[in-house]
Amino acid sequence: MNAKAIFYHAGCPVCVAAEQHVANAIDPSKYDVEIVHLGESKSRLPEAESAGVKSVPALVLDGTAFHINFGAGIEELK
Amino acid sequence: MNAKAIFYHAGCPVCVAAEQHVANAIDPSKYDVEIVHLGESKSRLPEAESAGVKSVPALVLDGTAFHINFGAGIEELK
Repeated sequence: MNAKAIFYHAGCPVCVAAEQHVANAIDPSKYDVEIVHLGESKSRLPEAESAGVKSVPALVLDGTAFHINFGAGIEELK
Repeated sequence: MNAKAIFYHAGCPVCVAAEQHVANAIDPSKYDVEIVHLGESKSRLPEAESAGVKSVPALVLDGTAFHINFGAGIEELK
């Protein structure tokens, strides 16, 4: 079974650039990649915060959050 | 021909965690992944700077730099 890779973003230009490069570079044989737009899917915010997401774009691999550059603080999305 | 993915780090715990997760998650059918320890390979610094690397760990995909800020507890850095 593949591990889960979740890419959280908020539609900003920084996020989109990161999504196109980083999310697409993930090995699909190792990870099931899910793209979540936190601005539109606010119901996913608690889950993102639990994983340690503090800003977007962020990539959660195996439950560990990696923040990519700095687009927007998660507080701004609420 | 595969594109180039270069993961720059400096041997810190934050870098190693990011390396283990992020660099290993890159699809090897799309990218040739190279890991560069900038603390040891200082000759690679100008190249990293040209790609826009401002901090480590950073991942350069197709010549575009993505800075990875792992949400590490400060305890891990001591």
